[in-house]
Amino acid sequence: MQGSHEIIAYNRSKEPVEEIAAEGAAAAFSLQQAVEMLSAPRIVWLMLPAGKPVEDTISQLKELLSSEDIVIDGGNSYYKDDLRRYQSLKETGIRYMDVGVSGGVWGLKLGYCMMMGGDKDVFKYLEPIFQTLAPREGYLYCGNIGAGHFVKMVHNGIEYGLMQAYGEGFEILDASEYAETFDYGKIAHLWNQGSVIRSWLLELAEDAFSKSAELSEIKGYVADSGEGRWTNIAAIEAGVPVHVLSAALYDRFNSRSEADFANQLLSAMRFEFGGHHEKPGGDK
Amino acid sequence: MQGSHEIIAYNRSKEPVEEIAAEGAAAAFSLQQAVEMLSAPRIVWLMLPAGKPVEDTISQLKELLSSEDIVIDGGNSYYKDDLRRYQSLKETGIRYMDVGVSGGVWGLKLGYCMMMGGDKDVFKYLEPIFQTLAPREGYLYCGNIGAGHFVKMVHNGIEYGLMQAYGEGFEILDASEYAETFDYGKIAHLWNQGSVIRSWLLELAEDAFSKSAELSEIKGYVADSGEGRWTNIAAIEAGVPVHVLSAALYDRFNSRSEADFANQLLSAMRFEFGGHHEKPGGDK
Repeated sequence: MQGSHEIIAYNRSKEPVEEIAAEGAAAAFSLQQAVEMLSAPRIVWLMLPAGKPVEDTISQLKELLSSEDIVIDGGNSYYKDDLRRYQSLKETGIRYMDVGVSGGVWGLKLGYCMMMGGDKDVFKYLEPIFQTLAPREGYLYCGNIGAGHFVKMVHNGIEYGLMQAYGEGFEILDASEYAETFDYGKIAHLWNQGSVIRSWLLELAEDAFSKSAELSEIKGYVADSGEGRWTNIAAIEAGVPVHVLSAALYDRFNSRSEADFANQLLSAMRFEFGGHHEKPGGDK
Repeated sequence: MQGSHEIIAYNRSKEPVEEIAAEGAAAAFSLQQAVEMLSAPRIVWLMLPAGKPVEDTISQLKELLSSEDIVIDGGNSYYKDDLRRYQSLKETGIRYMDVGVSGGVWGLKLGYCMMMGGDKDVFKYLEPIFQTLAPREGYLYCGNIGAGHFVKMVHNGIEYGLMQAYGEGFEILDASEYAETFDYGKIAHLWNQGSVIRSWLLELAEDAFSKSAELSEIKGYVADSGEGRWTNIAAIEAGVPVHVLSAALYDRFNSRSEADFANQLLSAMRFEFGGHHEKPGGDK
């Protein structure tokens, strides 16, 4: 194990545990067993989907762990949940940190980054672990409990805006009189050669176009994973106008055709006041 | 001169001509002199602000140049002007290409890119020049006349969206309960370490924060240079919804407080229907 850390791995399914055990971790096949195998003060790092999986696991850990043990939530939890869980675990002396992680599946190769929130002394105690995980200046203590997930949340909100900007730009190209001669993969590649809009996301777009020049088999149904919504809620709560971040979120909703009722009502009203029958393809 | 190209430099002001002459170019102190010094077929590369400067210069060149000579517009002209100028110059056999350039003042060091539109045979004839200017795959023939400036225009439209997404994200951080402990330079630096939103623009933001942690002396009056508007006009003409690119453009207008009349009217109506007196700082 890198950095000589001892690792005990647990997952609800057996296979991932066996995979990681083959790389040198000790295997646990229940949360209780994992806790028993750890020596105090225990450090339990959760990588779970936000919401119920984290909530349930932290409830169990509250029973299993002892004072001075540390729980780290490395998933994408809502920062307001962090504060609540921090206070709940504090009742029995269990310490808690939130860690937002960005970088995707290429992290180990290309570097990635982690954002921490919680008590500074807990951060300092855990720092050798962070140092091993992200040696290239890849972690930052952001502030009190929730600050790590807050910064990660805003990171994801920005990500929505960046992706939408690229998407709209390529859509304009594709709707233009020049579209027939455009090669989107080559344009993305060119823009990555020193242009102002070069970025890792544009490199991913370039890869996507290299696999499918027109993306014709891709449906364009765009999911959202929570953080885009929370970023917009945080902006509204603070009274901050985020036209781009909200438009990017709404466009994701729109991509799933879940808001057709509004358009149905518009068509219905146009018929009422002018006898307009809508035609597919427009009536300009 | 790189690539053994012979260069004759002309500018309305004497000083820049003398500067470039010191690097090996021949100096011309009038457009007519520049044209006389060139041997046919002449290649005239314009780097001028879009609009009147380009229009006036091309009018003069139409008189000064001969059939088979080539004019290149390397500025940020509107692609519809390219088509008009192309046809006008064609009357006397003068050939014309549009070249969009991105990369800013760091181009020579970090690479930059060029997007070309025009007749393919003219592009092929000029390619040794492009090869010298942007050796690292930094140029692309995009299609018929105007295509280069069209692609560059959309590049700038995307740039507005990306910049606004970052701006809004940092504003949410700055309005949050954690703002006091946030170090924006460190957060930008962290996000550039392998996060999904790493980019050259975020590196520039990091540089800006390193010079001024809170940007407190920066006014936030954001100019727009034409291409953002043209991108949105192109989208509207093609019926393409560009919520993010339009929001980014409108936020620039808004940053200059040129649209206060709408807000004055809202305040006036709130007073009319509810007797609300607006207070600076809100009346929530």
